[in-house]
Amino acid sequence: MAANAVPKIRSLSQKFKPLLDRVLVIKDEPLTRTKGGVIIPEKAQQEVNNAVVVAVGPGSRTPNGDYIKPNVNVGDKVLLPKFGGTKIDIEGEELHLFRETDLLAVIEKDS
Amino acid sequence: MAANAVPKIRSLSQKFKPLLDRVLVIKDEPLTRTKGGVIIPEKAQQEVNNAVVVAVGPGSRTPNGDYIKPNVNVGDKVLLPKFGGTKIDIEGEELHLFRETDLLAVIEKDS
Amino acid sequence: MAANAVPKIRSLSQKFKPLLDRVLVIKDEPLTRTKGGVIIPEKAQQEVNNAVVVAVGPGSRTPNGDYIKPNVNVGDKVLLPKFGGTKIDIEGEELHLFRETDLLAVIEKDS
Amino acid sequence: MAANAVPKIRSLSQKFKPLLDRVLVIKDEPLTRTKGGVIIPEKAQQEVNNAVVVAVGPGSRTPNGDYIKPNVNVGDKVLLPKFGGTKIDIEGEELHLFRETDLLAVIEKDS
Amino acid sequence: MAANAVPKIRSLSQKFKPLLDRVLVIKDEPLTRTKGGVIIPEKAQQEVNNAVVVAVGPGSRTPNGDYIKPNVNVGDKVLLPKFGGTKIDIEGEELHLFRETDLLAVIEKDS
Amino acid sequence: MAANAVPKIRSLSQKFKPLLDRVLVIKDEPLTRTKGGVIIPEKAQQEVNNAVVVAVGPGSRTPNGDYIKPNVNVGDKVLLPKFGGTKIDIEGEELHLFRETDLLAVIEKDS
Amino acid sequence: MAANAVPKIRSLSQKFKPLLDRVLVIKDEPLTRTKGGVIIPEKAQQEVNNAVVVAVGPGSRTPNGDYIKPNVNVGDKVLLPKFGGTKIDIEGEELHLFRETDLLAVIEKDS
Repeated sequence: MAANAVPKIRSLSQKFKPLLDRVLVIKDEPLTRTKGGVIIPEKAQQEVNNAVVVAVGPGSRTPNGDYIKPNVNVGDKVLLPKFGGTKIDIEGEELHLFRETDLLAVIEKDS
Repeated sequence: MAANAVPKIRSLSQKFKPLLDRVLVIKDEPLTRTKGGVIIPEKAQQEVNNAVVVAVGPGSRTPNGDYIKPNVNVGDKVLLPKFGGTKIDIEGEELHLFRETDLLAVIEKDS
Repeated sequence: MAANAVPKIRSLSQKFKPLLDRVLVIKDEPLTRTKGGVIIPEKAQQEVNNAVVVAVGPGSRTPNGDYIKPNVNVGDKVLLPKFGGTKIDIEGEELHLFRETDLLAVIEKDS
Repeated sequence: MAANAVPKIRSLSQKFKPLLDRVLVIKDEPLTRTKGGVIIPEKAQQEVNNAVVVAVGPGSRTPNGDYIKPNVNVGDKVLLPKFGGTKIDIEGEELHLFRETDLLAVIEKDS
Repeated sequence: MAANAVPKIRSLSQKFKPLLDRVLVIKDEPLTRTKGGVIIPEKAQQEVNNAVVVAVGPGSRTPNGDYIKPNVNVGDKVLLPKFGGTKIDIEGEELHLFRETDLLAVIEKDS
Repeated sequence: MAANAVPKIRSLSQKFKPLLDRVLVIKDEPLTRTKGGVIIPEKAQQEVNNAVVVAVGPGSRTPNGDYIKPNVNVGDKVLLPKFGGTKIDIEGEELHLFRETDLLAVIEKDS
Repeated sequence: MAANAVPKIRSLSQKFKPLLDRVLVIKDEPLTRTKGGVIIPEKAQQEVNNAVVVAVGPGSRTPNGDYIKPNVNVGDKVLLPKFGGTKIDIEGEELHLFRETDLLAVIEKDS
């Protein structure tokens, strides 16, 4: 996650209110160099399925219309499914919208 | 949003009562010039997915027939999905009907 | 709506009881002349999606069998979806049956 | 409806107990002559969608197994959908079984 | 129904416990002679859709797991749908298993 | 059922806990000889649909997560559907997993 | 299960929180030698469907949003279905995510 990401996430999460159980995420940057510093050609770059949660909707509805609070929060690091999600461009930034139920897991930060 | 849009929205929203969880929206005008004033040819104009809510139905029904109040209001700026919606012509104006559950997000106005 | 329509609607709505959430409507006559009086050839006549409600069923049922009162009434002007509905011939009159949930909106009369 | 139909309907409705929400109907005879008495060839005879209810099942079940009383009764005149229904031969008589929810409307007798 | 059928039905219904809402039936013998005694060739024999109920399961379950008592009983004469059902061979006897909800009607015995 | 089957069933049923409404069964051995002792070639051997229940899961869940106790028990003789089920190899033994709702009937032992 | 697997499982299960009813498992190593020590070529190696549970999500939701506690725990040995599951790479380790309802059985350890 780039250093200047945090303020950008905060501003986006205030401006952009996902509806229902949608979750807005920003994908991690793909690894462009190996640990040894060798440049990884674009084609060989692994598809990035890790992302950070930018904004969270109120949740899906019960049959009677109450909201079910999603199980992820802004700032969480999540594992995305290989497929699905909606690509969105906000102020030149590429983000993705997923349904909460499609997110696979939360990855705890190294304590 | 064109200057004379507000009164037009108000008159439409009084005459046109969407049923159930349908939401009537009017799409933003596509950008026809770059910030530098250069004209953008029609083919290159980005598809507009932002819109303003013109009228909102009573909401979808619970299994027992009560209405679930939609989570958007007249005047809200919303992000539309790429596909779906029903194009409607009212008094020469092109509008679209979406189901509330298909709307992606509410975009807060710049405070 | 032709002048003699109202009595016809009343007699049809007394004789014809739609079942469940079905709604019987009679479509507006298509515009055959422009405002300037020019005849519009049949092929160019816009498809009519406005109609007047002639009769309304008791509504759809809750899982326990109670009826959910439909949100339209006899005499309402409604906007029909482009597709769907069942064409019915009653005493030489062409009418259509729609499910309440397929009707798009109620169009308030000009106050 | 032929004159001797009523006693036949009564005997059938006592012998034949439709299960769940099935409704047994007997279709009207197709018009074989115009009002002026001209014979209508079989191919030109309009498909008959009017019928009389002969027997009615206890109704569909709620999730907990209670019956939902159907909204039609023996002797009602009903409008059938164009398609569907199960043709049944009982003692040489051609009848049809429909689900209650497939019947379109009840047609009140001319008062 | 052949004369020795009744004891056979009783023994089968004690040994064979259909699960959930399944109903075990034994089809009537097809008519092999006309009323006048003429032999009906196999190809011309009408498909038999009448049967007698041999054994009845406890019923389908409500969402909470309670059983919904089926609306047919051992010994009832029922009308089968044209298609469906599972053919079963028990001790050389050909029987059929149907779901209760697929059975069309109960045919009362001539009083 | 082979004589040494019972202890084998007991050990399997203690080691192997089917999840939810799954039921582990062991199929009867196919008849390889007629009652008169004649060997039945493999191709002519009737497909075996009888089996004995080896282990039973806790059952399917109600919408609120409670278990619905299955209607079969270890040791019951059951009739399997022709298709479906998952073949499983446990310690060289071929067994099958079925959903409880797919089992057709329980066959009582000859009293 | 390799000797050093246990600490690895513990660290993964603390870092990786599956969402909803997802269960993270690590498959057993395929048998590469027969009991007699003969090397089994890769193509002949049996597909491994046994695995150990590494981490368990909070469970699926009831219609009102409460969690239904899964019926498997970290460290359980489970039988996987032949198909399905999502392959995941965590720190060079190949793991799989399954929905709880897709897991076939828990295999008790030899007491």
